[in-house]
Amino acid sequence: MLVEKRLETLGIILPQKAVIGALYVPVKQTGNLLFISGQVPMKDGTPVFTGKIGSERSLAYGEDAARLCIINMLGAVKEYLGDLDRVKEVIKLQGFVNSEIGFDKQHIVINAASQLLYDIFGEIGRHARTAVGTNQLPMDVSVEIEAIFEIGKDV
Amino acid sequence: MLVEKRLETLGIILPQKAVIGALYVPVKQTGNLLFISGQVPMKDGTPVFTGKIGSERSLAYGEDAARLCIINMLGAVKEYLGDLDRVKEVIKLQGFVNSEIGFDKQHIVINAASQLLYDIFGEIGRHARTAVGTNQLPMDVSVEIEAIFEIGKDV
Amino acid sequence: MLVEKRLETLGIILPQKAVIGALYVPVKQTGNLLFISGQVPMKDGTPVFTGKIGSERSLAYGEDAARLCIINMLGAVKEYLGDLDRVKEVIKLQGFVNSEIGFDKQHIVINAASQLLYDIFGEIGRHARTAVGTNQLPMDVSVEIEAIFEIGKDV
Repeated sequence: MLVEKRLETLGIILPQKAVIGALYVPVKQTGNLLFISGQVPMKDGTPVFTGKIGSERSLAYGEDAARLCIINMLGAVKEYLGDLDRVKEVIKLQGFVNSEIGFDKQHIVINAASQLLYDIFGEIGRHARTAVGTNQLPMDVSVEIEAIFEIGKDV
Repeated sequence: MLVEKRLETLGIILPQKAVIGALYVPVKQTGNLLFISGQVPMKDGTPVFTGKIGSERSLAYGEDAARLCIINMLGAVKEYLGDLDRVKEVIKLQGFVNSEIGFDKQHIVINAASQLLYDIFGEIGRHARTAVGTNQLPMDVSVEIEAIFEIGKDV
Repeated sequence: MLVEKRLETLGIILPQKAVIGALYVPVKQTGNLLFISGQVPMKDGTPVFTGKIGSERSLAYGEDAARLCIINMLGAVKEYLGDLDRVKEVIKLQGFVNSEIGFDKQHIVINAASQLLYDIFGEIGRHARTAVGTNQLPMDVSVEIEAIFEIGKDV
């Protein structure tokens, strides 16, 4: 339970149940890859970071939103795997930042997500990554992040 | 031909030939995964759902566009595989919705795609998913959806 | 060194070092797949194609940006693999075009990327692809492209 210990040290409490629609699944496995549905900054079923990053919402607000996406992502992965130590590698992140015209620091926003994964998983948490802006996200959330994780074959 | 029967029951006729540019391919296989190019709501080579969802185009219009993307996707997969029963799992969808500023129901639009895959494939049709908005899509189509499918190894 | 020869014939010089943030990696491998981080049209650490394609920036400007993304991508892959002949297949591209409202030729912009991969790799360079627009990209770059490559197992 190494990852759980690091989460505790970081003061992170994972959500009990991934909030997700019925028509699709939070995590879908193929071979030893987990494809993780786009995570949004919700808490107890309610979006807590909404609106466009730029003048309306600050960079720091976007970073907080990105971190909550990762916390929800790990909640979904834990629910699927049972044990987060089964994660062998974080392969890929794709982050969408709800952006005002003129805001061009999407990479800084998504850095908060990458940093948190590194803080939790260490070297295996380093991943390939794409960060882009968008004019609209579902429920007007500020950030949405999807991922691919690799799990150990024998565990 | 179970999937073909379900398509018939649902009254769905797949396009004969995937409409796609010459520089890339509709489906690219690696191992037992099929990466499927972004599908747009075209019919006989012409976009049939165009414009931004919001006030200009209704939610229902977007849902129809999403369903046509899936029909074109299955046309491309059938052309590649010969037999849609070779599909073992729908792994992942990523849906882009051409959105007016203020429209934040991209997940509802893409639900129409997820529902159709579930109606056709049943449990193996449930997938990981990301739905986002965008300010522009190619040929001003209303929706674009890409996917990853898994096929059986022995078939 | 077949690929290197083709690069030379095409007059393409790859960048020596992939410019990328410290929190993530340019290339992450899982099995024989390489997930390549979103590449932007930078040169020596500076964005050289910026702004939205449409009236402000021409289609041709976007095509040049897309080609530079691919050149940087191959620089990153070469740095990772040592030898570009280890590339067995280009599996997938996803291209984001920084777009003015009303510009709907994202597929033409990304065709420049697809064409260049075909020119360099030939048939194995043909890939599945998604091209979309976006209202903002990091550092206001005009195009961002991510990819999945497959490498040979035994090489």
